[in-house]
Amino acid sequence: MLNVLCVVLCPHPCFLGPGQPCDCLPPLRAAAEQLRQKDLRISQLQADLRRPPPAPAQPPEPEALPTIYVVTPTYARLVQKAELVRLSQTLSLVPRLHWLLVEDAEGPTPLVSGLLAASGLLFTHLAVLTPKAQRLREGEPGWVRPRGVEQRNRALDWLRRGGGAVGGEKDPPPAGTRGVVYFADDDNTYSRELFEEMRWTRGVSVWPVGLVGGLRFEGPRVQDGRVVGFHTAWEPNRPFPVDMAGFAVALPLLLAKPNAQFDATAPRGHLESSLLSHLVDPKDLEPRAANCTRVLVWHTRTEKPKMKQEEQLQRQGRGSDPAVEV
Amino acid sequence: MLNVLCVVLCPHPCFLGPGQPCDCLPPLRAAAEQLRQKDLRISQLQADLRRPPPAPAQPPEPEALPTIYVVTPTYARLVQKAELVRLSQTLSLVPRLHWLLVEDAEGPTPLVSGLLAASGLLFTHLAVLTPKAQRLREGEPGWVRPRGVEQRNRALDWLRRGGGAVGGEKDPPPAGTRGVVYFADDDNTYSRELFEEMRWTRGVSVWPVGLVGGLRFEGPRVQDGRVVGFHTAWEPNRPFPVDMAGFAVALPLLLAKPNAQFDATAPRGHLESSLLSHLVDPKDLEPRAANCTRVLVWHTRTEKPKMKQEEQLQRQGRGSDPAVEV
Repeated sequence: MLNVLCVVLCPHPCFLGPGQPCDCLPPLRAAAEQLRQKDLRISQLQADLRRPPPAPAQPPEPEALPTIYVVTPTYARLVQKAELVRLSQTLSLVPRLHWLLVEDAEGPTPLVSGLLAASGLLFTHLAVLTPKAQRLREGEPGWVRPRGVEQRNRALDWLRRGGGAVGGEKDPPPAGTRGVVYFADDDNTYSRELFEEMRWTRGVSVWPVGLVGGLRFEGPRVQDGRVVGFHTAWEPNRPFPVDMAGFAVALPLLLAKPNAQFDATAPRGHLESSLLSHLVDPKDLEPRAANCTRVLVWHTRTEKPKMKQEEQLQRQGRGSDPAVEV
Repeated sequence: MLNVLCVVLCPHPCFLGPGQPCDCLPPLRAAAEQLRQKDLRISQLQADLRRPPPAPAQPPEPEALPTIYVVTPTYARLVQKAELVRLSQTLSLVPRLHWLLVEDAEGPTPLVSGLLAASGLLFTHLAVLTPKAQRLREGEPGWVRPRGVEQRNRALDWLRRGGGAVGGEKDPPPAGTRGVVYFADDDNTYSRELFEEMRWTRGVSVWPVGLVGGLRFEGPRVQDGRVVGFHTAWEPNRPFPVDMAGFAVALPLLLAKPNAQFDATAPRGHLESSLLSHLVDPKDLEPRAANCTRVLVWHTRTEKPKMKQEEQLQRQGRGSDPAVEV
């Protein structure tokens, strides 16, 4: 080692043997320069080691996907938390999703605020009470007055102008945001596949909905990739005989039509048409879910639980602990 | 730089100036040794850089977790697929889970087989038809005969002896497998948190169930970490007044008690007791979910959809396309 090194450092005759006269400066100067170079290399390598490792191969950046804005109106009832837990867990399987949960209430309730905070989802919490004149009267069947109209319109307002958020993200999507808006009630059943079907909607996309309108399913009829009619039993001549769960709208289209919203006074079965008529011609609907041959959402309804025993126990002062949230 | 280095390398008088007589060997030997040390350091750093980066902080290895065996009896009906999609998506959020789906049918149906294959879950598909004598008669209320008894017992058989699987994993857990068994009907609502509560069950663990028995919730009453009674309105003196969704059993305990199974002839409300009486003393139940103060499962029931319009259209030959699975 030393011999080789000496030759590299300096071919000077003083290396012939110890005790010989010589000028030591050139070989030592060379050695000092070599040491300096190696210190530099060591510093570089140490810096390389401190650098974070490159990210492993990843699925496509979520930032490259259009955002799905899911609008869910909700109201207080015995099964509310169960329904929202179930839905939030489904939504947690979908990348790049923003949940707009709109309570039918004067302000945010602790139950919903807590559930949203624990959901891990990106969300905006809104609240608006349905005006008394629009509310269902005791004993009226559910179809007399459509539910959730004010709440869906409040979500559209937020997407256009922001304001009014009582929790979560406060700012509406910045101009130019790519996205799609879907109205997902809290009692339906959604396959995670549905969300990827709607993600790249250009205008308004449509698909079948299971177990609705007294049928196994309702949905668009498609020929050569175009919507040519609708399979439905109820007023097939409505402008858009589709269920609320059966379509999604591109965000830029909604923003370009600032007057498009739901009309609380629309006749029965015409609520969806009251929005869609502002937005699209029926012939331009974009069929999804294998040309509308796959059912990926079901209009399930949850039974209202009977509380007879609860009332009996409460009369005896032995009701279920009200401190336990259900 | 050079001056400092020279002093370090060698205090020899030849450094007083060039051209002086001297013995160069000691300072050059010192320089060579320093260079060798730096080369060594560079090699070490280069080896460090070639080493793969340490794995980022990870949740505990799934292999280290006890497996949760979720037993779900299911039967053909309009909402079956919706319910199973919803449940399978919830289960997909839980690590180290094995779904035992047991059809009430003579053999596997295409709907369930397809759904399981698409679920991405680890599963075993079983099928056993409920004997005619045990089946509900037309018009009988649901509580007359418990449903799903044969199916749950078939799953217990498979866990103990294997055999009979019509899809998915065919072999039962090898001896010594750590795990827990939970009976999850396909219509309830499950928080993903529930599964982590039950995972480390030693014998039999218990927790409240929401919206069951005519109450906001039913569940164990706990004092000082022990179950001392049950909040329920229906026959509080049953040995185990708990709902099917309200307990889980350690797999080793089930295997150690080969006669423990559900008794189809048990009186109303005693089906759970017919299994649990083989397994545990009520005082040894392990309370979970914050000493049974949190509701993480709800006994939701899905309405049977009305098919009046479907029947009308079918009479006109315009029924929903039977090729579309709902």
